[in-house]
Amino acid sequence: MTAPLTNPGGADARDADDQLVADVFARGCGSRRTLENIAGKWGILALSALHEGAYRFNALRRRVDGVSEKMLSQTLQALERDGLVRRDVQTTIPPHVEYSLTPLGARVAERLIDLIELVESELGTVLAAQSEYDRAAADRNRRK
Amino acid sequence: MTAPLTNPGGADARDADDQLVADVFARGCGSRRTLENIAGKWGILALSALHEGAYRFNALRRRVDGVSEKMLSQTLQALERDGLVRRDVQTTIPPHVEYSLTPLGARVAERLIDLIELVESELGTVLAAQSEYDRAAADRNRRK
Repeated sequence: MTAPLTNPGGADARDADDQLVADVFARGCGSRRTLENIAGKWGILALSALHEGAYRFNALRRRVDGVSEKMLSQTLQALERDGLVRRDVQTTIPPHVEYSLTPLGARVAERLIDLIELVESELGTVLAAQSEYDRAAADRNRRK
Repeated sequence: MTAPLTNPGGADARDADDQLVADVFARGCGSRRTLENIAGKWGILALSALHEGAYRFNALRRRVDGVSEKMLSQTLQALERDGLVRRDVQTTIPPHVEYSLTPLGARVAERLIDLIELVESELGTVLAAQSEYDRAAADRNRRK
């Protein structure tokens, strides 16, 4: 990300020149789409939950409070395609499907957990900023 | 995030008991909405760009390739409300508006940059996983 203009062709340009640098700031770069899969609301929560250990689908859905079956399914599929999540079909009767992190998924999840822990620990600061912002906005409206 | 069930009431419950722990896994928790503002596609890119230094709106829009004026404006407003971004109106002629990170915004941005650098550096692994996934899916379709 320190070389914004070196990869104007994005992921497609990699074939032509492997020296090109991935750059999430470039709209065509494949790294941006992966970042979106990871950092979408449900991507973050699914990866962080799976860092606690493998989950079956329904247990993961309970852990990630509020996610619909469809959204969790789409999220896991995108993360599996990106090589961050493994999907294992176990040959039990009835068979069941378990999701876990790949080594790269675990490295990504560690960074997400750092971020989550910071946001959780600073929630007081955030809530105070929100109150102040809303108060100032209300003042401005009153003066209009 | 290690205490999934301690904060069922989310942010609203903080008034009743400040010992409650912020938990992004709980759908009502205020930390989850902040995480969404940070980690939405444009939130990540705007915060990471601002970590390079202050930007005026149009320069930031050029840096975050592909963002619309409306989306960038909404993103910055949400981040300002959360206390992560400062908006300074400079009394030049014509006046102009500059955006920069607050101290908390800088700490958040550092973690986002860690994540971005990992994703960029592992883009080859991700692209290989995608090819393998798509090849396996095509095989399954062919056998149907």
